[in-house]
Amino acid sequence: MSADGLSVDGARLRQTLETLATFGAEPSGGVSRTSFSPADTAARAWLRDQCEASGLRLRTDGIGNVFVTVPAPDAPDSAPVWTGSHLDSVPDGGRFDGALGSMAALEVARRLAESRLPLRRPVEMVVFADEEGCYHHLLGSTALVRSYGPDELERLRGRDGDRLVDALRSAGRDVGAATRTAVAPGSVHAFVELHIEQGAVLESAGVDIGVVTSIVGMGGGSLEFTGRADHAGTTPMTMRRDPLRGAGAFLAGLPDVTASISDTAVATCGIIAVEPGGANVVPSVARLQLDFRDVRRSSIEALEQALADAARRAAAAHGLEVRYTRDSITDPAPLDPRVQDLIESVASALGRTTMRLPSGAGHDSQNLSRLAPTGMIFIPSTGGRSHSPAEHSSWEDVERGADVLLRTVAALATE
Amino acid sequence: MSADGLSVDGARLRQTLETLATFGAEPSGGVSRTSFSPADTAARAWLRDQCEASGLRLRTDGIGNVFVTVPAPDAPDSAPVWTGSHLDSVPDGGRFDGALGSMAALEVARRLAESRLPLRRPVEMVVFADEEGCYHHLLGSTALVRSYGPDELERLRGRDGDRLVDALRSAGRDVGAATRTAVAPGSVHAFVELHIEQGAVLESAGVDIGVVTSIVGMGGGSLEFTGRADHAGTTPMTMRRDPLRGAGAFLAGLPDVTASISDTAVATCGIIAVEPGGANVVPSVARLQLDFRDVRRSSIEALEQALADAARRAAAAHGLEVRYTRDSITDPAPLDPRVQDLIESVASALGRTTMRLPSGAGHDSQNLSRLAPTGMIFIPSTGGRSHSPAEHSSWEDVERGADVLLRTVAALATE
Repeated sequence: MSADGLSVDGARLRQTLETLATFGAEPSGGVSRTSFSPADTAARAWLRDQCEASGLRLRTDGIGNVFVTVPAPDAPDSAPVWTGSHLDSVPDGGRFDGALGSMAALEVARRLAESRLPLRRPVEMVVFADEEGCYHHLLGSTALVRSYGPDELERLRGRDGDRLVDALRSAGRDVGAATRTAVAPGSVHAFVELHIEQGAVLESAGVDIGVVTSIVGMGGGSLEFTGRADHAGTTPMTMRRDPLRGAGAFLAGLPDVTASISDTAVATCGIIAVEPGGANVVPSVARLQLDFRDVRRSSIEALEQALADAARRAAAAHGLEVRYTRDSITDPAPLDPRVQDLIESVASALGRTTMRLPSGAGHDSQNLSRLAPTGMIFIPSTGGRSHSPAEHSSWEDVERGADVLLRTVAALATE
Repeated sequence: MSADGLSVDGARLRQTLETLATFGAEPSGGVSRTSFSPADTAARAWLRDQCEASGLRLRTDGIGNVFVTVPAPDAPDSAPVWTGSHLDSVPDGGRFDGALGSMAALEVARRLAESRLPLRRPVEMVVFADEEGCYHHLLGSTALVRSYGPDELERLRGRDGDRLVDALRSAGRDVGAATRTAVAPGSVHAFVELHIEQGAVLESAGVDIGVVTSIVGMGGGSLEFTGRADHAGTTPMTMRRDPLRGAGAFLAGLPDVTASISDTAVATCGIIAVEPGGANVVPSVARLQLDFRDVRRSSIEALEQALADAARRAAAAHGLEVRYTRDSITDPAPLDPRVQDLIESVASALGRTTMRLPSGAGHDSQNLSRLAPTGMIFIPSTGGRSHSPAEHSSWEDVERGADVLLRTVAALATE
């Protein structure tokens, strides 16, 4: 059997995806399967059973990354081809983000094991821990690039304030092993991830398969507008220094700021808080958490500067002070041109239309691209919705994407 | 001795105010003495000791209002003159709001008892429970106007979610008695409250004493801007329906809305929240709590309408929906003209400059004005600051205000 004849079992893939969606299922139709939650733990146990039933061995590294190996009997020590994604979700997230790439990787592993295709290197399904960053942005794949130090590990806390080391211990894991997770560059032959687009570009263009050119860089920071707390009844409007006036003007003007940088630049305030937070008190402080992204590092830095400038103008117009604090900037990650070409040719041979596009979302692939030649395959997201119960892709697109993944991985493992 | 010769003991008044400020003292210099807190309970016990040491009898009604009587031996059953304020504070509030009027009333009671002025009716110092509305806006004075029903009482919850009935029981009180607190109209001869202005009008005008003409009416309501949750990375700016854009435009435009109604109209958003509240998710909903006030009922209603209209325009401009929900509107409370004239003439006789002004803040006096002829005396607030550790009035102004209160109460009790 050659790689060209391979295709996934679409019914089996759909069934595993539907079963996975029962772990952490919400009445909304979405799933809450945050990392180390009982739902995540149950899904991992179920995955182990699935693999054992298929005769595939599963192992978990110190931080919680899962590896399932399809061996290459004639070349057991060759650098493997990796494929996979993540099982964890955001709270009340969708049924496809991460799940698609993980279950498609399981299907690839099953198909390759069943096909007895003569592999020139092993294929490993990988499930990265905590991609959604409950404890750390891209926790598991970061740990593959560089191990966390013991002190850093001690400091990591979840969304609810719980400590990662406690979560690891509760899961029966050795915290020491969580500091020994990095893999050497060159020890992975290539990595390919299938994912939903999470945007509306493919759907709008009527294209089947997206070939990801790069993963956008991401900036995070916070703005603190400071005015003066005053009594809501006794302070005339003209005598106030209300930080929500400046914050409001800034928020209403966000689209103008991003448009001044590029068409691809985006900026979001998803968290806002005021102090002291009483119904009858003019706030003293308004804090805005910012997320801003673009495809080039220089654009991200220019965008950050433009955001801070806009905040200063809004503050000055309303007699306020404002302070911008950068949390971090992640570099954009260009993906491997040869893997992009391979995905495109595989998809074309299957009769699929393709387009190249950047990913606006962060993915474990951006870490993997520092370890090995890396590619990403996108399928359309209905209405571009994601991180929401409304997240959806058609079963036809799921199967098409999984077929492209299978043949791409097979080609890489037999070259 | 005649009422005209009376004056307070300024040193004693300052000392009682400074001692009171130790109950719930914060490192900030402010106080946190919310109702039924340990600090509030300790302050009440201390007040009882102070009264007993002065030979004054203290009683507490079912909801926690405190009464201290200076008897009129020749007319024990005449309707008394009341004076007082409240001991509770907002969290990290100031040392004068409520405390001034309460400790000045204690000083008035002490002075009248010491002076043996022949009273034609008793004078009662009153401390109203929970003026700051941890459990209910103006809890104690509302209970004097109309008792709470048992079901209503069961439903009242504090800022931290605790039940009022549990707080009453913990304080060793009979919950049944908390439903029997109303006093009959006509049973109080007059009420006078000394308070800090909590605004900057007196200070700006360089005037010693404010004679309050009315207490503004107050509206409360909420705005809910609804858009669509989207991924912060994959959704182009032009495809978003971000509720913070509409909310931001609304907040920046608040001064224009109030200016369209009157010079006295104010509107405040002191609480804002977004859902789902993730750093990398465009919010689906932004909720704003509104407080709006003016001196006439018709203006408050017009202001409410203008706020809702402005929110609708901001929502429409950004492709959002918005819903306004009224919580309540409290009528403005005009204060008694004869008591205003009396305060003014007493102040003038003491050589103080006066001006008439409305109160932008709510006070127990607005409830008392429905029970008896009511007046309020304001002294200047430094910088107009209140509900904050920065709240301040000079000891000279404190003594001046207390002297005006003493002579006004004495005049009412001897007429």
